[in-house]
Amino acid sequence: MAVNQITATALVEQLGGQLRGSDVIVTRITSLQQAQANDISFLSNPRLRAEALASKAGVLIVTEKSAEVLTDRTLIVTDDPYLYFAQVARLFHPRIQAKAFIHPSAVVAPSAKIAASCEIGAHVVIGDRCIIGENTRILAGAVIEDDCTVGSDCVIHANVTIYHGCILGNRVELHSGCVIGADGFGFAWDKQKNEWFKIVQTGCVILGDDVEIGANTTIDRGAIENTIIENDAKIDNQVMIGHNGKIGAHVAIVACTGIAGSTEVGAYSVIGGAAMIGGHLHIPPKTTIGAATAVSHSIKESGYYASIFPLQKHSDWVKNAAHIRHLHEMSQKIKALEHQLAELNGNSSNQQD
Amino acid sequence: MAVNQITATALVEQLGGQLRGSDVIVTRITSLQQAQANDISFLSNPRLRAEALASKAGVLIVTEKSAEVLTDRTLIVTDDPYLYFAQVARLFHPRIQAKAFIHPSAVVAPSAKIAASCEIGAHVVIGDRCIIGENTRILAGAVIEDDCTVGSDCVIHANVTIYHGCILGNRVELHSGCVIGADGFGFAWDKQKNEWFKIVQTGCVILGDDVEIGANTTIDRGAIENTIIENDAKIDNQVMIGHNGKIGAHVAIVACTGIAGSTEVGAYSVIGGAAMIGGHLHIPPKTTIGAATAVSHSIKESGYYASIFPLQKHSDWVKNAAHIRHLHEMSQKIKALEHQLAELNGNSSNQQD
Amino acid sequence: MAVNQITATALVEQLGGQLRGSDVIVTRITSLQQAQANDISFLSNPRLRAEALASKAGVLIVTEKSAEVLTDRTLIVTDDPYLYFAQVARLFHPRIQAKAFIHPSAVVAPSAKIAASCEIGAHVVIGDRCIIGENTRILAGAVIEDDCTVGSDCVIHANVTIYHGCILGNRVELHSGCVIGADGFGFAWDKQKNEWFKIVQTGCVILGDDVEIGANTTIDRGAIENTIIENDAKIDNQVMIGHNGKIGAHVAIVACTGIAGSTEVGAYSVIGGAAMIGGHLHIPPKTTIGAATAVSHSIKESGYYASIFPLQKHSDWVKNAAHIRHLHEMSQKIKALEHQLAELNGNSSNQQD
Repeated sequence: MAVNQITATALVEQLGGQLRGSDVIVTRITSLQQAQANDISFLSNPRLRAEALASKAGVLIVTEKSAEVLTDRTLIVTDDPYLYFAQVARLFHPRIQAKAFIHPSAVVAPSAKIAASCEIGAHVVIGDRCIIGENTRILAGAVIEDDCTVGSDCVIHANVTIYHGCILGNRVELHSGCVIGADGFGFAWDKQKNEWFKIVQTGCVILGDDVEIGANTTIDRGAIENTIIENDAKIDNQVMIGHNGKIGAHVAIVACTGIAGSTEVGAYSVIGGAAMIGGHLHIPPKTTIGAATAVSHSIKESGYYASIFPLQKHSDWVKNAAHIRHLHEMSQKIKALEHQLAELNGNSSNQQD
Repeated sequence: MAVNQITATALVEQLGGQLRGSDVIVTRITSLQQAQANDISFLSNPRLRAEALASKAGVLIVTEKSAEVLTDRTLIVTDDPYLYFAQVARLFHPRIQAKAFIHPSAVVAPSAKIAASCEIGAHVVIGDRCIIGENTRILAGAVIEDDCTVGSDCVIHANVTIYHGCILGNRVELHSGCVIGADGFGFAWDKQKNEWFKIVQTGCVILGDDVEIGANTTIDRGAIENTIIENDAKIDNQVMIGHNGKIGAHVAIVACTGIAGSTEVGAYSVIGGAAMIGGHLHIPPKTTIGAATAVSHSIKESGYYASIFPLQKHSDWVKNAAHIRHLHEMSQKIKALEHQLAELNGNSSNQQD
Repeated sequence: MAVNQITATALVEQLGGQLRGSDVIVTRITSLQQAQANDISFLSNPRLRAEALASKAGVLIVTEKSAEVLTDRTLIVTDDPYLYFAQVARLFHPRIQAKAFIHPSAVVAPSAKIAASCEIGAHVVIGDRCIIGENTRILAGAVIEDDCTVGSDCVIHANVTIYHGCILGNRVELHSGCVIGADGFGFAWDKQKNEWFKIVQTGCVILGDDVEIGANTTIDRGAIENTIIENDAKIDNQVMIGHNGKIGAHVAIVACTGIAGSTEVGAYSVIGGAAMIGGHLHIPPKTTIGAATAVSHSIKESGYYASIFPLQKHSDWVKNAAHIRHLHEMSQKIKALEHQLAELNGNSSNQQD
């Protein structure tokens, strides 16, 4: 049940943290700027202290350090204000419960096993032999092809497509327009016929528990083995994961990132957005790949990597970019200068002797 | 009603411009290359004058300057031939009128208010308490979740998804596969449980009047505040706008561009394609961001910005790119050379004294 | 009919190649690592010879050269093991035959001509005057608007959208979420009204025979002329082809690539992934554009082109990237050094005379 209002005292009872100042009834979570007397907000980034000072929020969630400068306020002091805020927000906006209900316009194969608590929306299509777990919600227009398994407490949003034979864990959330299990991009060139010959893609996609996949993201099925997204990986919108990819547990992939086939991203890594990672590569656990970064070889050591061309006024870019094409010559000129100067120094030294 | 044929005289009566040469009946709009005696085409780019001279078009829309070199032709002279051509094209291909009709396969919640003039296509789903304005067309398979407001004269193309609570102005056009209002990408790391904790995304998406959104573009709902696209912004295909983004009026965003969360793009700016703009940034009004440009910091002054690595033959790229990794050393070497040379010049000068 | 098991002898009878070693019954195709006694696998990349030696595969498809190091094994020797493997895989996993069947939930316009052998899935929508060829499968939730022609033996996957008036050849495969024929991005700026004026997009999209289009890819209709994808072109997921584009026969375009409007890619070229090609450009046949490469001008000579900024540790990137902004100055400094050194050498020479 969603909370409509709660006292700061009740919040710390439920979620921990230390209450300072007088108790306040909280009716809304919001930003520092918009907050009013019965709102709760948070200060996580110390650079926003001025905004916190100016905020009319009835309750502020802060660290011990920030608390020092926010006297005369009702505060909840905690190690991680952002996480705490997220937990408060969840109280006000809990996960929507599945209505145990199959819309009459849904087309569900008789051989599919749909848990009684599931919610199956209008115009949903569920294929033969699918298994759908308890409390899972499948929203309007989603298509789940034959032989898929979907765990419990999942949300498959409207107009999602899951190709045949894919396997989803529990508490998976797939946003609208994402496509799970389309064919990987595999073709052999037939020299004799002078045309492409399709490699049938016989693997599937396996999504672990607590995976979230963004809108219009595509995760291709494996060519022979499977494409695997491990537990608690979070993937943003318009991401592309090629066939046979392995995305480790707790990895976060920001929007517009592409990861080519057979690449492995180690657990706890953070990728992108708009990063581009080549195929058959290995990214070690706990690696950070910067936004708009192109990764064309495996990374041996975890760390923070980047490769973007720095932004400039176009007129400066024109001047500077032209030299990129001649960096090798530039380097050769420097070598020549060093050589000439060394000779000259030799000569000069000789003259000074 | 669509025009099937019209005289050049009638065109200038309706749309302005100055007719030169004999009147012609126009039955089709087309390109300079394909045009025949009853076709109208236009010359906007002066570099295409040779094509215009060679064109068999019955009527050419041109500037005064181009008119000078196109004698003995039927011309419509105007300041802006491209705009004029667009207006002629609109006469031949007017906006499609909504058929006042709800397809029997559509699933419309009883609490939704659908204007009588609306066209609701096959398998459309419209949720509780939605409000749909006059003459709006919602095409096959589109899903509009609960509590959305869609203005009048909108076109929601096939298989679009609009999440709950979003607000669209009048004359909005959403192309197929676009997803409006999916959850923004927000997770707090829970150090104790060693897993992500989802930040509920409680804002919505607000699209102003005359906004057009391309196929498979995604615009995420706000985390706390709303994501806002202002009037007359035009967004191409496969663009990603992160949560809490603010896109100003009349902005044009070309395909494949990603704009991360909480970034503000000022009115009249032109972005991309394939540009990537980081989160929490500010782009001033009337700024142009070049194609494939990465923007990782706010821009203070409007202007034209770029950041692409110049194209080269791969073999040259290999040679030149390697030096990028050593630019700092290269710069140090130049400094050392300057220093040595200054010393040497000092010595030489001394010797010459 | 799918093959469930076949002897190595029967394979070479059907597909050619030379059998070495004792005959084996093959029941599965798989990777070198996973293969067991009745599995067939292949060795195409010589760097994987160790894996081939260690593999338990009952049959290995290899080149003559690799055969030399794989004695005491059942081998099929062929020029192109990858293609051969693809052909074996196809025997085990043939194209799915259309069930001659129109699902009762499909909405098919009475004026559409659907071949009797077609399979039309649940909630499919097919518009007026469409023509669908023999054995074509149109899967759940796909929408084909009025006046489209789809050839024979095509597969239109779930939730695909094809706008009105598009033409598909035979054996075309469109993956889920792809959008064919949405409006190109064309607007004229109306200086007087201070707003955009839409250019109606009156062309269509024409896809040749054997074209495959990936999930969530978008191919826009032409502005005046048509957007054309020629025979056997293979396009991966999340690719964007702008209006009036011409993609030549047998071209392969890897995922996340964007090609702006009116650009022509010559036959047999290979593009991307994540490449970005500007508008109104010409790429000659048999050109390779590297991953994540930006192409901003036409290419005159076919070859292999690249433009990515090399990956570095972020701390190194910060140091090196800063110098990019000053490459022009760096180049000027080198010129000054060369000039000074030439003078000095002149002086030195004079002194040595």
